[in-house]
Amino acid sequence: MQDFKTATSRRDLIRGGAMLASGAMLMRPTTVLAADSNMAAIRKAAEAGRDASLKRIRDWIALPSIAAENRSMKEGAEYMAELARDAGFQHVEIVPTDGHPGVFATLDAGAKRTLGIYFMYDVKQYDPAEWSSPPLESRMVDKPGLGKAIVGRGAVNQKGPEATFLAALHAIRAAGRKLPVNIVLICEGEEEIGSPHFKQVATKPNVLAALRKCEGIFIPASWQDGQGNVQVNLGSKGIIELELVASGEKWGKGPKGDIHSSLKAMVDSPSWRLVQALQTLVTPDGNTPAIEGWFENVRPLTEREKALIGEIAKSADEAQQKKLLGVTHWIDGLPYDKALERLAQEPTVNIEGLVAGYTGPGGKTVLPGKAVAKLDLRLVPNQTRAEAERKLRAHLDKHGFADVEVNVSGGYDPTEVSEDSRLIKTMLATYAHAGVKATLNPRIAGSWPGATFTAPPVSIPAGHFGMGHGSGAHAPDEYYLIESSNPKVAGLVEATMGYADFLYQLAAIK
Amino acid sequence: MQDFKTATSRRDLIRGGAMLASGAMLMRPTTVLAADSNMAAIRKAAEAGRDASLKRIRDWIALPSIAAENRSMKEGAEYMAELARDAGFQHVEIVPTDGHPGVFATLDAGAKRTLGIYFMYDVKQYDPAEWSSPPLESRMVDKPGLGKAIVGRGAVNQKGPEATFLAALHAIRAAGRKLPVNIVLICEGEEEIGSPHFKQVATKPNVLAALRKCEGIFIPASWQDGQGNVQVNLGSKGIIELELVASGEKWGKGPKGDIHSSLKAMVDSPSWRLVQALQTLVTPDGNTPAIEGWFENVRPLTEREKALIGEIAKSADEAQQKKLLGVTHWIDGLPYDKALERLAQEPTVNIEGLVAGYTGPGGKTVLPGKAVAKLDLRLVPNQTRAEAERKLRAHLDKHGFADVEVNVSGGYDPTEVSEDSRLIKTMLATYAHAGVKATLNPRIAGSWPGATFTAPPVSIPAGHFGMGHGSGAHAPDEYYLIESSNPKVAGLVEATMGYADFLYQLAAIK
Repeated sequence: MQDFKTATSRRDLIRGGAMLASGAMLMRPTTVLAADSNMAAIRKAAEAGRDASLKRIRDWIALPSIAAENRSMKEGAEYMAELARDAGFQHVEIVPTDGHPGVFATLDAGAKRTLGIYFMYDVKQYDPAEWSSPPLESRMVDKPGLGKAIVGRGAVNQKGPEATFLAALHAIRAAGRKLPVNIVLICEGEEEIGSPHFKQVATKPNVLAALRKCEGIFIPASWQDGQGNVQVNLGSKGIIELELVASGEKWGKGPKGDIHSSLKAMVDSPSWRLVQALQTLVTPDGNTPAIEGWFENVRPLTEREKALIGEIAKSADEAQQKKLLGVTHWIDGLPYDKALERLAQEPTVNIEGLVAGYTGPGGKTVLPGKAVAKLDLRLVPNQTRAEAERKLRAHLDKHGFADVEVNVSGGYDPTEVSEDSRLIKTMLATYAHAGVKATLNPRIAGSWPGATFTAPPVSIPAGHFGMGHGSGAHAPDEYYLIESSNPKVAGLVEATMGYADFLYQLAAIK
Repeated sequence: MQDFKTATSRRDLIRGGAMLASGAMLMRPTTVLAADSNMAAIRKAAEAGRDASLKRIRDWIALPSIAAENRSMKEGAEYMAELARDAGFQHVEIVPTDGHPGVFATLDAGAKRTLGIYFMYDVKQYDPAEWSSPPLESRMVDKPGLGKAIVGRGAVNQKGPEATFLAALHAIRAAGRKLPVNIVLICEGEEEIGSPHFKQVATKPNVLAALRKCEGIFIPASWQDGQGNVQVNLGSKGIIELELVASGEKWGKGPKGDIHSSLKAMVDSPSWRLVQALQTLVTPDGNTPAIEGWFENVRPLTEREKALIGEIAKSADEAQQKKLLGVTHWIDGLPYDKALERLAQEPTVNIEGLVAGYTGPGGKTVLPGKAVAKLDLRLVPNQTRAEAERKLRAHLDKHGFADVEVNVSGGYDPTEVSEDSRLIKTMLATYAHAGVKATLNPRIAGSWPGATFTAPPVSIPAGHFGMGHGSGAHAPDEYYLIESSNPKVAGLVEATMGYADFLYQLAAIK
């Protein structure tokens, strides 16, 4: 979810135009939810436990585990385990990996159905100098139009929503209710570095066995936008991130290091080699992958998927979307509905960055020994990461660029979740019960490690769920809404109730 | 000479292989030069003035004028004027420009012939933390195999050689001799930023009139390599340095700023646009410019020029050259003589640097709003900078890249100097007189602002001359040799005598 997180920081922006601009239902008043006697008791407990829940989030934020800096990783895993025990999980274990440890926990309620929950206990790096309040102090601030929010690293990504899910378990227990479903909790500490060892956690035999019993799995997410709307996603693109490197060292032509640029007249240039290799990867407009066999396993969008996108397009504010993105035209001048179809349908080869030679202000007369393109390649069903890596390498070799290195730093397979799965049906039912307008999106163009769950050997539905609101993942002044001033957007207690209701809905759904 | 300086820091390396590996004549013993009575008296004065000469260099180094930092520019021009007055120039004026001022001075000896001298009073930026001794203190250090050298910013580029030339004027005066030629001195303070206003100095009417009377002009340079050999260059390539910029802003497609990379499926990419524009500029191997009409005015090498290059190639150590450069093959697998011909003959389009989007470690899922290629394009006679700029723009426009910006930061026309000019004949005679092995190079692939002199309206021969040795231009621990332990390499006094002898040779040559 490394990439997904980057995407979430722009989620409002991306979804803003794609959501129904008007007509979103109001959150139902408390009395409606209270019609259910369990819910009334649990709400009372959630309200009573509100200060403890807030303290739980703040204490967690005060202990930042940052995998990229190898900071407080052991402590983070132990803290995560303790949070699980406190919330009532009977079996809690720290799962070592070749990297940082994961945490696995089960809460057996003797129920018929089991829900999987995915947590990350790590957070993104931060620079306190860029923040308006100390990033580990979770200070409460006023957000005009939204309410009171805490500001801290991990507030929305992902400790706030995760601790809110735990608050639901605490509230159900405090209300004297038995959980309506069993819970399997799987946590990692390397989400922010691309989940390189997460599969080791998920495929540990007892973890795998537990996951396979789940109806599905979700990561708690503060999924409401500023108008209270949510999107329920039926899948996500996959991705490989890589560096394409042309160097004199590997090529056997050109210099090994940077030399004086006047020598270009007698020495080959790895930078030009990179340019030549790059331009074989896409069509001349840069918009369609031209890697051999790239579309072999691409599944076209179904009519149903196109219809869902059409609905999104119809209710969207295209002009606002363009303004927010700073673009005046979509690819090929497409109308918005076709652009959104393209967004969902097409695999991409994107240049994230170019780095060669002198990169400072002005110029410097060097012939660089190495040139690098940082690429991300988005994949759609039924492409796989392994297939993409293999085909990219074969393409370069076939076009005479065997020396051009492909250094893959990470990636995920695409994911798909059936609209008919109990996981998705329960999400829709829970949002409807809360009066939250939910839009089905057949596929987000961002990527997350959900394929760890949706692909063999786990093979269960996976997605994101949660009410509440926050923003600023990966950015300074990340926040999570605690007291909402907008009745359409859930604060801490309402979001807690959303998770509690999800459990009951899952137990009851057909 | 911005680029020439960068080149000088690699001069030994570039020339090393192209020089006669053995057979260089020994510097003649003192007694040979002393045969000339003028020279004997001047040598005595030069030896007596040695400490004052050294102090002159050190004091000058202690006042760094850095145009890029607008540091001590006024003081630098005034100091330069004072140095000229001290050396006997009767007319000295500071010449204002739209940038930093130049200095113009004349020394009328009532002689028949006049020599032009080009100085720069500015130096390159430096970071004292990278130096082994303070860069303004000119500390004397032992250089094994060379002797005693001062270490300081500007030591070799260019204050050391320039002050050594002034030392020759001091010595001649101290010896009671009249200068055998008149001197016209023209100085600039913006050499390190590409001489943007130097033409304003050179074409000021009284300056222009004075320059046009000169037999030729040179910049004093410590031109001997570690073995005492020198190269006499009959020209240099021109250059334009520029940034090629593709941006959503100008294109009207793609984003104005960086957006999330998942949007690549519906938004065009300025980075891909840059790649496509770039690859039209060269042949697929990256080695020959493919810009429309680029070779229209290219003059092929003459048979004489090829013969001179053949001589260089024959006496060179190709294996060592390759090792020093870190290359295993020349372009097209050419043999060394043909590679050196290509070096002199071919215009180039070189990528100095590529910069787009995320350039740090790892990746970041952005679609950059802008992508930049830093290019230098070397020009050969009879291409001109103005022609090159015009043709590059026209080429991009014709290929549909009218939105791709060409931001030229600087450049020089190519230069040519006739082997038969008194300037070159005097250089060769002076080197021969000193027993220094000199090799004629028809064209260096580096560039310098000599076209200010060789092109209209000045139209006089221009080049580099000087004995002595130093290295580290633009680098930390830049040094200039004061006491040579190698009889083949000139120290401060021998280099002073080289300049003095040049004046007498110029007065006498046919």
